[in-house]
Amino acid sequence: MTTDLGYEIIIKNGILSEVFNYLDTQRQYLIVKDDGIPNIYLDTLLKQKKCFVLTLEQGEKNKSFENYLKIQDFLLKHEFKRSDALIALGGGVIGDIVGFAASTFKRGISYIQIPTSTMAQIDSSIGGKTAINFQNFKNIIGTFYQPEKVFIDPSLLKTLSKKNFNNGLIEGLKMALLFDEKLFNIFLNDNINKNINTIITRSVELKKEIIIKDFKEKNIRKVLNFGHTIGHALESYYHNEKCLHGECVGQGMLYFIKDKDVKEKVKFILKKLDIQIKLDYKIDEILNFIKNDKKKDNDFFDVIVLNKIANYSINKLSINEIKEILERGI
Amino acid sequence: MTTDLGYEIIIKNGILSEVFNYLDTQRQYLIVKDDGIPNIYLDTLLKQKKCFVLTLEQGEKNKSFENYLKIQDFLLKHEFKRSDALIALGGGVIGDIVGFAASTFKRGISYIQIPTSTMAQIDSSIGGKTAINFQNFKNIIGTFYQPEKVFIDPSLLKTLSKKNFNNGLIEGLKMALLFDEKLFNIFLNDNINKNINTIITRSVELKKEIIIKDFKEKNIRKVLNFGHTIGHALESYYHNEKCLHGECVGQGMLYFIKDKDVKEKVKFILKKLDIQIKLDYKIDEILNFIKNDKKKDNDFFDVIVLNKIANYSINKLSINEIKEILERGI
Repeated sequence: MTTDLGYEIIIKNGILSEVFNYLDTQRQYLIVKDDGIPNIYLDTLLKQKKCFVLTLEQGEKNKSFENYLKIQDFLLKHEFKRSDALIALGGGVIGDIVGFAASTFKRGISYIQIPTSTMAQIDSSIGGKTAINFQNFKNIIGTFYQPEKVFIDPSLLKTLSKKNFNNGLIEGLKMALLFDEKLFNIFLNDNINKNINTIITRSVELKKEIIIKDFKEKNIRKVLNFGHTIGHALESYYHNEKCLHGECVGQGMLYFIKDKDVKEKVKFILKKLDIQIKLDYKIDEILNFIKNDKKKDNDFFDVIVLNKIANYSINKLSINEIKEILERGI
Repeated sequence: MTTDLGYEIIIKNGILSEVFNYLDTQRQYLIVKDDGIPNIYLDTLLKQKKCFVLTLEQGEKNKSFENYLKIQDFLLKHEFKRSDALIALGGGVIGDIVGFAASTFKRGISYIQIPTSTMAQIDSSIGGKTAINFQNFKNIIGTFYQPEKVFIDPSLLKTLSKKNFNNGLIEGLKMALLFDEKLFNIFLNDNINKNINTIITRSVELKKEIIIKDFKEKNIRKVLNFGHTIGHALESYYHNEKCLHGECVGQGMLYFIKDKDVKEKVKFILKKLDIQIKLDYKIDEILNFIKNDKKKDNDFFDVIVLNKIANYSINKLSINEIKEILERGI
């Protein structure tokens, strides 16, 4: 699939073993991965071309300045040039930190995304949002910077734990709720595993359309934050471990679905995906995290409200209105 | 002067006291300055609008990660929003680090340049190159990120030391050599102090034309690196203190001026500006710094050679050819 984004996104089972057919083999590459990536994936790449490899620890807390500097340090030590490139082999954490490192090394070198988690394949490898965390705030430092190419190999998802596999599906469910009833019905009625390629392809297609219209999130791209205002705060509150990104966003969406029938269906889907609703948080602490949300604008928050499937509004809510919504529950 | 860069550059004596007539006064501002900036300049801004102020130590070595994080930390503590802005009040160091901080906080907030040195007014405040230094390498981490507006007040240059005032003129001399014999003749024949507004305006105008054609330095913008390959290395070698940026670039240009008459004229101008030629460096160490130059491409360096005034070539030189040039001297 060639996009109008200015870069190619290739979705295909087995594409991992053909990656370098699509890349310049004359330059140097640094593959950055985490220690949870199966060796066989790395070997599949190294068989095609000799690359440098840097392995980071797995987990959201490693999307840190320390690791960012580790990458920069590596690139300097090995005399990487502006014409060389980075490869992000991993989930959202790896994609985000590698993108940020690439966007700032020598004012920008190329990076290639090879997402290995459902979350990264469905959502985070597309769209050029790069980031690291800083002082407990998620994604607070970063850039908008497009990858050179994205290779999505759904067959890689087989090695994921069920929990991680399901976690990533929530961003697909979000796209379905916002834009596509047909996709929503797959989540509701069909075997999700069997339809994973369709879910990825359709979600990526929908996201792509939004990014083309509004890369820097000045307007329409904001709707992709549906569920994220409360979702991000829950994630920070639970330090991401007890509540993965998708799980938090799943819960975060429920607060803002107006149609009762749709809300019940979403609850049913979350149950189908083994996603627990957590309500043992302290509201004041959640509000504190929300106050530092990147999307805050003059003390009001752009919050996406779903009226029914494929029908949403962007509402400006004060922190007190969000407090009431949290108190009301789901 | 409104540019086609997408942002305004205003050059006018006394503009400092009118800055907020041109800016949104409804948002928060953080002014970042260094401790060498006269209080009166800061007060002139604060009289117009209440702003936060962060003062960094003066000098190139303060364009560091530590200070970058200090800015990010300040923005977080004071809950800066995407719609708020930074103001860089100072020379090139302040402009570069503030630009980099702005480009990466919440994936990019606005920044305004108020350059106070000749160097920054003539050159570095224009063009959106942001950077910090890392591990002895100058500007090795950074982004391309345009300011919202640039206010150039030549009357601020009166408080500079003669050495600093003259240092900044070299980038203007560079523009003259590359593009504009009339401007070159001002340097050669006229009183430079009396013509400072003309020198700034013309240099900015010339730089602007280049940036519009090639913001991300893919081709034509590279010519602005005339004198910088060796210049940057000299700067790193002398730790910037014994040899300021302009002084190093002035010397760096001499190695690559073919026309003997022009070269003698440039030497005369450097003398007029009290700029010393230093030849006590160790060639191998200079070469080591050059090897890590951002502009290296497959072991060749794009080096600008001046054939005569307003006539240059871009040559690809190997490190050995550069070594020979250094050995030959000026």
